[in-house]
Amino acid sequence: MMDTQLVLNGFVKRVETYFPHKEIVSRTSADKIHRLTYKDFATRTRKLASALEKIGMTKGMKVGSFAWNQHRHLEAYFAVPCTGAVLHMINIRLADEHLEYIINHAQDEILLVDIDLFETIERILPKLTTVKQIVVMSDSDDLPESQFSALYSYEKLLAEAPDDYQFPTDLDENLPAAMCYTSATTGFPKGVVYTHRGLVLHAINLGLVDSFGLSERSVALPVVPMFHVNAWGIPFASVNFGAKLVLPGPNFTSHTLIDLIEEERVTFTAGVPTIWMGVLQELEKTPRDMSSLEMVAAGGSASPPALIQKFTHKFGIPYKTVYGMTETSPIVSVAALTSEMDDWSEEEKIAALSTQGLTVPLIETEIINEDGEVPADGQTMGELRIRGPWISSEYYNDERTIDAYRDGWLYTGDIAVRTPQGNIKITDRTKDLIKSGGEWISSVDLENALMAHDAVFEAAVIAIPHIKWQERPLACVVLQEGYDTSVKEELKTFLATQVAKWWMPDDIVFVREIPKTSVGKFLKAKLRDDMKDYQLTP
Amino acid sequence: MMDTQLVLNGFVKRVETYFPHKEIVSRTSADKIHRLTYKDFATRTRKLASALEKIGMTKGMKVGSFAWNQHRHLEAYFAVPCTGAVLHMINIRLADEHLEYIINHAQDEILLVDIDLFETIERILPKLTTVKQIVVMSDSDDLPESQFSALYSYEKLLAEAPDDYQFPTDLDENLPAAMCYTSATTGFPKGVVYTHRGLVLHAINLGLVDSFGLSERSVALPVVPMFHVNAWGIPFASVNFGAKLVLPGPNFTSHTLIDLIEEERVTFTAGVPTIWMGVLQELEKTPRDMSSLEMVAAGGSASPPALIQKFTHKFGIPYKTVYGMTETSPIVSVAALTSEMDDWSEEEKIAALSTQGLTVPLIETEIINEDGEVPADGQTMGELRIRGPWISSEYYNDERTIDAYRDGWLYTGDIAVRTPQGNIKITDRTKDLIKSGGEWISSVDLENALMAHDAVFEAAVIAIPHIKWQERPLACVVLQEGYDTSVKEELKTFLATQVAKWWMPDDIVFVREIPKTSVGKFLKAKLRDDMKDYQLTP
Repeated sequence: MMDTQLVLNGFVKRVETYFPHKEIVSRTSADKIHRLTYKDFATRTRKLASALEKIGMTKGMKVGSFAWNQHRHLEAYFAVPCTGAVLHMINIRLADEHLEYIINHAQDEILLVDIDLFETIERILPKLTTVKQIVVMSDSDDLPESQFSALYSYEKLLAEAPDDYQFPTDLDENLPAAMCYTSATTGFPKGVVYTHRGLVLHAINLGLVDSFGLSERSVALPVVPMFHVNAWGIPFASVNFGAKLVLPGPNFTSHTLIDLIEEERVTFTAGVPTIWMGVLQELEKTPRDMSSLEMVAAGGSASPPALIQKFTHKFGIPYKTVYGMTETSPIVSVAALTSEMDDWSEEEKIAALSTQGLTVPLIETEIINEDGEVPADGQTMGELRIRGPWISSEYYNDERTIDAYRDGWLYTGDIAVRTPQGNIKITDRTKDLIKSGGEWISSVDLENALMAHDAVFEAAVIAIPHIKWQERPLACVVLQEGYDTSVKEELKTFLATQVAKWWMPDDIVFVREIPKTSVGKFLKAKLRDDMKDYQLTP
Repeated sequence: MMDTQLVLNGFVKRVETYFPHKEIVSRTSADKIHRLTYKDFATRTRKLASALEKIGMTKGMKVGSFAWNQHRHLEAYFAVPCTGAVLHMINIRLADEHLEYIINHAQDEILLVDIDLFETIERILPKLTTVKQIVVMSDSDDLPESQFSALYSYEKLLAEAPDDYQFPTDLDENLPAAMCYTSATTGFPKGVVYTHRGLVLHAINLGLVDSFGLSERSVALPVVPMFHVNAWGIPFASVNFGAKLVLPGPNFTSHTLIDLIEEERVTFTAGVPTIWMGVLQELEKTPRDMSSLEMVAAGGSASPPALIQKFTHKFGIPYKTVYGMTETSPIVSVAALTSEMDDWSEEEKIAALSTQGLTVPLIETEIINEDGEVPADGQTMGELRIRGPWISSEYYNDERTIDAYRDGWLYTGDIAVRTPQGNIKITDRTKDLIKSGGEWISSVDLENALMAHDAVFEAAVIAIPHIKWQERPLACVVLQEGYDTSVKEELKTFLATQVAKWWMPDDIVFVREIPKTSVGKFLKAKLRDDMKDYQLTP
């Protein structure tokens, strides 16, 4: 066979050759929609590469992006890796201290910054030790006021760049192409480096019928931020398959997303469950035309069955749970209804769609406890471990690598069971499991059960120290509008019909909101800290 | 990223873990249907590997298969490569002289032979210089009479094999996994070797929505023989995705195929256009329930638009042309209706489906003439060249490599145009082009035009030497039942409305059949030879 390297460069060539007229639709501000053809995207991407090389970008250099989901960010997704440099997608929601750490730790030398986010970078500039140039992304050539002198306008750089730049054709598939940092339970975020080969194989996987099914006919709206795990690979896959891309831009709301889905006839969208809860609330108030949607992918945290049920049945929108991590590029598994489930009851189907799903081709997963791999009984819990060609093998320059990478596997820290159909079902994080009298209680199962009640908007269950049982569960509930704390006894009765008696939370407390990470996951460490003075009635 | 090797071994593990209950349905003889679950398939595959190693199979050894599309052949598709040996799929339709050549040239040491094909092998045995063992595949343990002593029963070997054999876990993705020989215009067949990496990437590609769209819900019937270019990769892909496989076995007819499609609710099938012409004739006589079909893939030679039109409209069966060669694993391109064609006329859509389609992801194609790459105008002809990770880089131990492989590309010998939508449209083989007065005439276009007439069953157009124009086209036509040669003038009038005047064949002759290669392609060299005494009226 030919020694063809699996590099992202081929994606750009493919889209401009076969799908030059297809569109990238970017919402660049609250009232502006920008449209770009793939032909112009390819031209601009090459010009960006040329311009960045002119201001100093070299092979292997880290180039940080600090940006929303918009077309310039997409251009950087290809311009940087296709020259052999590495795009570091910086999470714009991190605290200053963490931003400083990751930019310095990655050794970013150039930053590409959305103009409305520039203030944050300006604020931390004195602490950045490696950044030499900053390129400001904006519709105009105007630059913001800054203490920093090596400031460039993205559009001005492109206007001055030559038309005839060509990407190198000799990149090795194992070259680093991109990197992201993931929040750690303790300490600074940990970096994960993605290679061309990993990203290419991951992107191809998103075109499989049983995965995301992205194709030329797709209209893909990645709600998941482009600063978060390659926006789940959707930008790479869409370019490769010639799918129309819809990028939601800065500070969107549920209303914005619904508008985009309706107006651009979106067929595929992906994001965390919290997003879909908001969209659902909006749709329940004001029905809209969502008929173009063929798949809503939800991941990052578990989707409550009640949410899946409403999307699937009330709105007729297929809703699939997916699973992955920053360490896994990210897609590891996708929940779908296989042919053997055709004669299952609706309730059983929703239960199957609530799992993290079937492991995708080329990836291997195992659920391990002290007895080895757990049986596929849907009951026996163990830790999920993963290996495959788009699974990282280390944290970037980080001693914490040994905590997660052993024996050729990534140990996820997620506690899971394997269903008889082979689906992964996450029952908890290792550190969030409730250990009561030597047995494990799954906080996620309790949360899902609670969230099925109309009065509950969100629920998080945490462990509270207990003198006799070591730990007992405490449920923290955010109420839907229109309900008050008098619903407490009703919730207890509701829960009692669904879970074992010894799993019942010792109490339910009502809170304003559940603390969340920058990517919308429950921040249980914070919640445990908030509740540290709570005393269980003995 | 982890250094995970792309090897076929993962496919077996995946199918037995996630889809153990799904079925492989084999038609093993005219009246026998054999059913095997993937769980049992995986067990038998490991037993076969163990048994073959016991009788001498080692890493890198060539093991020939001489068999129909049936479940034992599928077991060999995995058992041989997953141990590091190489499966040589031998075309059972070759002449004895060519069989002897390829078995000796590949240096096959073990042969796996279907019992009803054993006679052929027995006949050529005295000429085989490397074969040391023969395993006879049959439902029983009985062995045929033979002059050869090292003869084994497949089922007896399996019955004696241990249960606990495990495939090696350290195979390199660039190891040879399989090989096929392809007929040459002159001389003996040429060998092509496939690596694990190439076959894995090719199989994944068949799951893409815009390719074959194979998935867990597919019921796949590869009519294309398993001794011909990996049966287009369908067996590998079906195992990987957990699709139900339907294998049509020996000596099937159109009637057999229709029965299998109806009874097993086949969703996907693939074969040469000649097969689909026969199926069409049968369906026109006796309507049957083909409603399960979601895609018919046709390749190996061009599909006449009339055939596509009838399948698509008369029977409501989506029919897609695909393109590939033994040298390309084989899938290079697939014709489909892209979103921009939605408002095209039915005639334009059929024309698009008649092309060889869009190049699939990871593969690059170029159409080259003396001026470089041809414009995408649907008019300018050039030679098609291809490169990518499942394109071979040489003929196995063969000096003819230099005829086809140059500058990192495979030169196909196919003359093509690029349509404005980017589709490849093959207009001829380099050697079949008709060069009239310095201009090129496409024999394929003339054939398609003729085949659109109800009276024409098949048509082949060849070049006849001409004193003034160098070459002129001669049409050789096989009539449909119920028509006679009096239709000749009508055919000429019919053709005149569709092609340029100077393209009009100088004559139409009626023949009993068009000579074909062992894989059903028009054998124009033979036809030209048959017609060598034909004299054109000056």
